[in-house]
Amino acid sequence: MKVRFADRMNTSTRSFIREILKVAESPDIISFAGGLPSPQSFPQRELAEAAQVVMSETPDQALQYSATEGFLPLRQWIADRYRMRFGWEVSSDEILITNGSQQGVDLLGKILLNAGDSVVMEAPGYLGAWQAFALYQPEVFTVPLEADGPNLERLEQLLEQHPVRMMYVAPNFQNPSGITYSERKRRAVASLLRKHETILIEDDPYGELRFEGTAPSSFRTYLNNQCCVLGTFSKMVSPGLRIGWVYAPAEVMEKLVIAKQAADLQSNHLAQRIIHTYLIQNDVDRHLNEIQRLYRERRDLMLDCLKAAFPADVKFNKPQGGMFLWGELPNSVDVQLWLERAIRNRVAFVPGAAFYPQGDAPSSLRLNFSNADPGSIETGIQRLRKAYG
Amino acid sequence: MKVRFADRMNTSTRSFIREILKVAESPDIISFAGGLPSPQSFPQRELAEAAQVVMSETPDQALQYSATEGFLPLRQWIADRYRMRFGWEVSSDEILITNGSQQGVDLLGKILLNAGDSVVMEAPGYLGAWQAFALYQPEVFTVPLEADGPNLERLEQLLEQHPVRMMYVAPNFQNPSGITYSERKRRAVASLLRKHETILIEDDPYGELRFEGTAPSSFRTYLNNQCCVLGTFSKMVSPGLRIGWVYAPAEVMEKLVIAKQAADLQSNHLAQRIIHTYLIQNDVDRHLNEIQRLYRERRDLMLDCLKAAFPADVKFNKPQGGMFLWGELPNSVDVQLWLERAIRNRVAFVPGAAFYPQGDAPSSLRLNFSNADPGSIETGIQRLRKAYG
Repeated sequence: MKVRFADRMNTSTRSFIREILKVAESPDIISFAGGLPSPQSFPQRELAEAAQVVMSETPDQALQYSATEGFLPLRQWIADRYRMRFGWEVSSDEILITNGSQQGVDLLGKILLNAGDSVVMEAPGYLGAWQAFALYQPEVFTVPLEADGPNLERLEQLLEQHPVRMMYVAPNFQNPSGITYSERKRRAVASLLRKHETILIEDDPYGELRFEGTAPSSFRTYLNNQCCVLGTFSKMVSPGLRIGWVYAPAEVMEKLVIAKQAADLQSNHLAQRIIHTYLIQNDVDRHLNEIQRLYRERRDLMLDCLKAAFPADVKFNKPQGGMFLWGELPNSVDVQLWLERAIRNRVAFVPGAAFYPQGDAPSSLRLNFSNADPGSIETGIQRLRKAYG
Repeated sequence: MKVRFADRMNTSTRSFIREILKVAESPDIISFAGGLPSPQSFPQRELAEAAQVVMSETPDQALQYSATEGFLPLRQWIADRYRMRFGWEVSSDEILITNGSQQGVDLLGKILLNAGDSVVMEAPGYLGAWQAFALYQPEVFTVPLEADGPNLERLEQLLEQHPVRMMYVAPNFQNPSGITYSERKRRAVASLLRKHETILIEDDPYGELRFEGTAPSSFRTYLNNQCCVLGTFSKMVSPGLRIGWVYAPAEVMEKLVIAKQAADLQSNHLAQRIIHTYLIQNDVDRHLNEIQRLYRERRDLMLDCLKAAFPADVKFNKPQGGMFLWGELPNSVDVQLWLERAIRNRVAFVPGAAFYPQGDAPSSLRLNFSNADPGSIETGIQRLRKAYG
């Protein structure tokens, strides 16, 4: 018997990146291809202690079923942190705990999108969001990213021509481009979206990884309840625990809770309590400072090595935070061929084209700087240069 | 601005059970309403030790991103357990780790169901599956459960009249009814489904909680690759860790992995490693024997109390495992009124009608026996009797 799958499964293809990452897993390959935080950024000892505290003090609760919305003190901590960072008045009722921010993306797609609805995505953009939304079969339009954010003319044109339900953005140190939207562009994008009543999803996994400059405003500042914000502990504590959140207004939260309950009843309760115990027993800002210092050093070293090795027509940006560099190359360069040679040379990266699912990619590449130690960065960039020809 | 939600959200209503459970949370209420395992069934000390081992020996890995399919040694353990229990040749490639079996239900709905597709569910049935599938907008038909499984005439009629894509069953100590399908009915159901090429989803959270009698065959034995099996560690280890699995043939697994990646990238890696360490360092069957003994005692006590307290026309079944009893009452009894009086009397249960989303419920109720100690069972049943009038 041949299984017939739902139509929504026709839209999804196997991820090209997944294939590169599989090759890059080989231990003799230096990989700038992945999107992993450094294990040095995990507060291992503190998390082990937190696990011990939770397992000895509240095992009955930590191991039992719990609320779909999430562990209340953790939701309160997240609400308080928004107040501290941005001065927002956030209620814990407006925070839903999810399995990483990826589940927030999926649940928002589920509650908001009918098949055929128009959605605006960034190009290049975060593939995980493309994949999550694709299963709800929207019509996806892309707006090209410039150094300071989306091309406004294209965005305005899209909003005029289509009833766009939702725009998904990652405005801080975006994966893959490292781009951060300027304050001016945020204001302009918000103004366009307000006019067209388009909901904005602000995915912000890297906002707390800023190691230089000043943070611009969240879209929430301009759009209020027309904006849902996604956050995660993956980059500030640990991705393996899969704890993220959605901050959304009450009417959206009500639907999110229904979808979350249908999806998996609740997130891992033990992990929520471990993270919460870690957060209240330690100085989180000091820990973040350490990660920021580590990643800034790696970004600087990688940029120095790239500058020394490559001709001037290979251009890399200099993001003020996050985990990725983005390089643009002369159009004559065959990036796919370069990648093949690089892998033979035991170094890996992701071609920019992978982040343009609708095609039309410039000759470009993404390099991850967070998860390679200094020696690997130096050797890896040399190998990359050799493969470049 | 008023948010417009996706059409799929119109089909879902707030769970009636959720409301009862909220009331039943009050500490002075004895609740037979929930569906919780006893905290005594959690191997707390052993899990605390396993957490320590994982956090001290493999913190870099346990806290990092990992494979979408799940932690390979855990998938292998599950495959080996199927071999041991049923003699099946299962490959770890056929096991996907999910956030409890609820996520398995959701992902299977996602990859298999188009809006309008026909699905057969049990009546009474597991509400979590109704809620998960409802968001993919199928047309749901119900087959009534009898003491030994579904009514075969109704099932045959449904399969003849509709192109049924999928049938969802929980054939062992079903939630809510406690019913287990007989071997004869399993064979007959499988034969009907084979003829109509209908996929069977066998949800089996309670199969390892059998404390009497002999286990009938899994549907997998009769249907082979036409059957997907869902399992979970929620009842044998801990529900708070949210680790379950799907056992499915390769072509289904390929789509499940795409859907899982879109849903949340992967399940909690730390929890997977803690459970795996627990499983290989301890005698799981001995632990299961302890849970079985505990639950058998509670079932027996509850049945004895019910028999002593209620007239003969209030009939309870005697499931050979699981966590629930099912009671049927004279049609003249107003169960909703009874519940209201019971809650005033500080005891809670769930009316059977809650498990018949399409109506047509007999006068009935579900009682959970796993999560109340002997004293609470005795007092609770007396309160229940008093409220009955």
